[in-house]
Amino acid sequence: MATLQDLMLSAAINGGSTIVFLLVFAFLRLQPFSDRVYYPKWFIKGVRKSEDRPIKARFVNLDPRAYLHFLDWMWESIRMPELELIDHAGLDSAILLRIYLLGLKVFVPLLVLCFLILVPVNATDTNLRKSSGKLFSADIDKLSVANVQDRSDRLWAHMLLTYVFTLWTCYVLHNEYKTVAFMRLRFLKSQLSRPEQFTVLVRQIPDDPDETVGLHVDHFFRVNHYEHYLMYQAGLKSRFSSPNQKGFLGIRGEKLDAMKFYTSEIERLVGEAATEKERIFSDEKAKLPVAFVTFDSRWGAAVCAQTQQTKDPTKWLAEWAPEPRDVYWRNLAIPYMELYFRKIAITAAVVVLILFFMIPVTFVQSLANIEDIERTVKFLRPVIERKFIKSILQGFLPGLALKIFLLILPSVLMILSKVEGHLSLSKLDRMAAAKHFYFMVFNVFFASVFTGSALQQLKLFLHKSPSDIPQLLGDAIPLKATFFISYIMVDGWASVAGEILRLKPLLFFHFRNMMFVKTEKDREKAMAPGGLSLNTALPHVGLYFLLGLVYAVIAPIILPFIVTFFGFSYLVYRNQVINVYHPEYESAGGFWPHIHNRVVASMIIMQLTLLGLLSTKRAASSTPFLAGLPVLTFIFHTYTKRCFESAFVKFPLEVSS
Amino acid sequence: MATLQDLMLSAAINGGSTIVFLLVFAFLRLQPFSDRVYYPKWFIKGVRKSEDRPIKARFVNLDPRAYLHFLDWMWESIRMPELELIDHAGLDSAILLRIYLLGLKVFVPLLVLCFLILVPVNATDTNLRKSSGKLFSADIDKLSVANVQDRSDRLWAHMLLTYVFTLWTCYVLHNEYKTVAFMRLRFLKSQLSRPEQFTVLVRQIPDDPDETVGLHVDHFFRVNHYEHYLMYQAGLKSRFSSPNQKGFLGIRGEKLDAMKFYTSEIERLVGEAATEKERIFSDEKAKLPVAFVTFDSRWGAAVCAQTQQTKDPTKWLAEWAPEPRDVYWRNLAIPYMELYFRKIAITAAVVVLILFFMIPVTFVQSLANIEDIERTVKFLRPVIERKFIKSILQGFLPGLALKIFLLILPSVLMILSKVEGHLSLSKLDRMAAAKHFYFMVFNVFFASVFTGSALQQLKLFLHKSPSDIPQLLGDAIPLKATFFISYIMVDGWASVAGEILRLKPLLFFHFRNMMFVKTEKDREKAMAPGGLSLNTALPHVGLYFLLGLVYAVIAPIILPFIVTFFGFSYLVYRNQVINVYHPEYESAGGFWPHIHNRVVASMIIMQLTLLGLLSTKRAASSTPFLAGLPVLTFIFHTYTKRCFESAFVKFPLEVSS
Repeated sequence: MATLQDLMLSAAINGGSTIVFLLVFAFLRLQPFSDRVYYPKWFIKGVRKSEDRPIKARFVNLDPRAYLHFLDWMWESIRMPELELIDHAGLDSAILLRIYLLGLKVFVPLLVLCFLILVPVNATDTNLRKSSGKLFSADIDKLSVANVQDRSDRLWAHMLLTYVFTLWTCYVLHNEYKTVAFMRLRFLKSQLSRPEQFTVLVRQIPDDPDETVGLHVDHFFRVNHYEHYLMYQAGLKSRFSSPNQKGFLGIRGEKLDAMKFYTSEIERLVGEAATEKERIFSDEKAKLPVAFVTFDSRWGAAVCAQTQQTKDPTKWLAEWAPEPRDVYWRNLAIPYMELYFRKIAITAAVVVLILFFMIPVTFVQSLANIEDIERTVKFLRPVIERKFIKSILQGFLPGLALKIFLLILPSVLMILSKVEGHLSLSKLDRMAAAKHFYFMVFNVFFASVFTGSALQQLKLFLHKSPSDIPQLLGDAIPLKATFFISYIMVDGWASVAGEILRLKPLLFFHFRNMMFVKTEKDREKAMAPGGLSLNTALPHVGLYFLLGLVYAVIAPIILPFIVTFFGFSYLVYRNQVINVYHPEYESAGGFWPHIHNRVVASMIIMQLTLLGLLSTKRAASSTPFLAGLPVLTFIFHTYTKRCFESAFVKFPLEVSS
Repeated sequence: MATLQDLMLSAAINGGSTIVFLLVFAFLRLQPFSDRVYYPKWFIKGVRKSEDRPIKARFVNLDPRAYLHFLDWMWESIRMPELELIDHAGLDSAILLRIYLLGLKVFVPLLVLCFLILVPVNATDTNLRKSSGKLFSADIDKLSVANVQDRSDRLWAHMLLTYVFTLWTCYVLHNEYKTVAFMRLRFLKSQLSRPEQFTVLVRQIPDDPDETVGLHVDHFFRVNHYEHYLMYQAGLKSRFSSPNQKGFLGIRGEKLDAMKFYTSEIERLVGEAATEKERIFSDEKAKLPVAFVTFDSRWGAAVCAQTQQTKDPTKWLAEWAPEPRDVYWRNLAIPYMELYFRKIAITAAVVVLILFFMIPVTFVQSLANIEDIERTVKFLRPVIERKFIKSILQGFLPGLALKIFLLILPSVLMILSKVEGHLSLSKLDRMAAAKHFYFMVFNVFFASVFTGSALQQLKLFLHKSPSDIPQLLGDAIPLKATFFISYIMVDGWASVAGEILRLKPLLFFHFRNMMFVKTEKDREKAMAPGGLSLNTALPHVGLYFLLGLVYAVIAPIILPFIVTFFGFSYLVYRNQVINVYHPEYESAGGFWPHIHNRVVASMIIMQLTLLGLLSTKRAASSTPFLAGLPVLTFIFHTYTKRCFESAFVKFPLEVSS
């Protein structure tokens, strides 16, 4: 276990490098040559143009006054009011920011309370003085519950604060859920003129030997929704898939006269398109059992999307059509039973992935053990043994090894979610995020707590009785506070700093710009900033909520790091959302219930841990008071679910208000 | 543990008394004086009348030829085809009978397979010969898996048969679910002309300061369902509750001149009704926030019942109106949040009931212990020590003590369900049945298996690891086979025999008939047979499915008793449904998913028990083959749920087919 010095050094290094990143960004963002990397959103909107600047200032900013205001970006990103931000960047972006704000709302009061009450209570006790010289004697542990003696009355403070924290978190969660649900419904109402508000996606259309899919749909809706049915659009299976990037990183191998090349390309494509169109319209097999059905009123569409059409619940499945850009076309026509078995198979695959992923990771982590490295690579010994370098290695290596493995994970999980058969990109992002979160809970959180793979944890839990589990948590979790503090810095702070610097897009943009960009269209392609990457952002925030809540009472020293993460993230993502990202779709905050549920689950883990800890400390008189808390939290969960979840699942018929 | 002789004696006694009951019934049903007890349904229908018989034959049947056909009732009750039965007694009755038929379909092939394969396999092994003289040496155990030696290859037979049983049960369940869903939808379609098919029950109507509830409803539906909305009927709170029986068993204390008395009564009531009517229509407070809203088409009602009306999911809740006679009026106006907290409170109450009910029961059971009785009441010793009487006591007493406690339970559970706030009698029956079933699983099945109260079981399971639970089941369940055989006879056979004899209604009818019946109306009241009592019938059947499936592989000797129960019940209930009961409501088989889910849960308990048993027998090579079976069963459960459950929950829009 690291000492306070190790931790301070690590914090200084991580904090310092974060500040350096910020300064570099503050400098680079003022340079015209990086305008398209740091402000692509404004170019896409057409507000900002390269030609706006005088020729001589197109590459480097020579105006010294600009550098006086080099930190203004923070103020600028904070300044934009939320309604304007929704208008500018979409509701998903605004609600993503609210998640970071939620983190601040939850953890800042916790931080204040902990440092006013818990830290003095812990620090003035003497449990660790008795056992000095042991592992436990690290200074930071004096601030944690480990320093409180067994059977001490001081433990009442921890118990009471668990109640206060739970109540406060529930209060904040409740208000946020209410606000977000309101924002979502207001937003959907403001979108009333959009075609998808009148359109329903109908799948699993049964075969009809006598008529084509199109006619079948038409007849069906003319009979069953005759008052509001307007028209249908059949799903077609085309060899033309979505325009896919050719070559590596958008680099094409040939060099040709562009005009000639594109003219011939266009001719070829037009010809192909005509043939394909003809083929599709004549070929019955190209018609998929899927249709977009449009109604003459939102009421008609809402009715169709919420009701069961026929006696067979596996046929004529209707749901709100996602926005056209949100539809994941490939999955529309999967037969019902296949969809069902895909779901089972992917669930099994995710369980296997979670159980066995840790085998290669622990292998690499064991290589990263300092003592082992010293022993194996003996000539490095003098270097490693220097206190400074040893501290760095101890602070960085375990977190880094994990991080590298986690980098390839999102793509794997996204592929699994696609195979699972979800219909929209927003759902894919949410489902990949959910898988990623479960993965992190078992393979980052519990794996670090119990220093074992998910497979070993499974064995552990199978052979422990349910009444032993809180104690298991209470024993193991407090020991890992410093590891997670280092993890927060390496994973949290550094990745947010990397997020704002956009080093990879910066280099790629200039590389492409030099090599291939001929026209304005090319340049736009090269700067394309992409969407919000919710599939990676959400699970990470979920993990930090878990860490913050679980350690708030046990080792309050973690809270400043968590609060810094949320504050810093809020600042950076506000900038990114305003200046950089251009969302691929708009799901109107459809991901909020996921985040809400995860925070609630984190609270329950926090309470179980405290229960176990108190029984380890033999505080028998205060333990029963905690036992009701998980039940109350669960009741809170069902209550908010009943009140607010429907805003994200159903669509009320009431149109006027 | 009882010996084979004990068991045979008990079977002879129970079987004998059952046959005596049947003979008494066969005799009594031929007597005109008991016509109204055994054939009330036909009187209610107006098909049978007392005046049909000649005067001299109005009390005792003197026609000797009638007695030659005294067993014809069996044939008569079997003969009616199902469609005619639905028409005569309703779909609920027909589907209740299908549950007993399901029991036969599941267990008869199991019985054949077990006696062809398992019993020889068990009987020819020698495990119990070695340990003769011990508890295990009872003869019946030689036919069970207890007689198979550890590590024997014979255990493969048990494992394979578990697979066969699971597959067969799933196959039968699947077909039945499909058939019942089809019957339900066909029935609902045939009821298209009934007003409740066009009516939706709307609850949680919000207050409006400017208009009355009625106008508010009218305005709301004129706006949001303007095309199909027809009219509303507001819920009114009246001091007139449903006509309640006065006095004990319908006996009134006074004796008056009937004509005078009733004339003055009628005058009083008419006056009161007029005052009350006036009061209600002028008093705003008497108007409940509830309305029955009628549409001009089934489509309009289906749309309203399946959709969310406003943004607030706790307001304007619409659902299919139950039949008028099925509505439980008192619960219509409970506010949403109160309903939610009632649900939580009742769930807690049921848990407490299940956990602590066993305390008085075990107390009484300990009194019923023969050795204790001998010790306490010494003068009874010579009587008890006679082998014959001892066998009777051993066979009867434990089951009987339990049975008495279980008799008062249904009313308690029905009260709890009413407080929980369900809206229809059918739902009340189903929810009381569900509570009763959980109660029986823990307080009859597991309590007998682990010989401890539910509270002790909870402690046991909290301190055992999940991997130990199958072993725990595998150790304890086989020991209790004979107890459950005796339970099946005492509880199952006897109560079915009692059911057909209707001793209580017979006595009460004649008692009332002699004392109070003046008019034909009075006589109809005195014979009123009541409904099906699904709240007690369903959980008992559920328990027998559990016993049959769990013991099929372990102690096949139980199967003949189970099959007898199902066959006998089918026969008796078919007679009762045709001749006796007059259902209070028609839920179109809404209880089927409950039964289905319970049989599936029983299968999973069966598989876990076998898993534990095989690991106890150290049959390491065959155990892993069983581990996948619970998972497959769970997949079967989700599959049938997806395919068929919607027929019981939703109402398709498609009206034409």
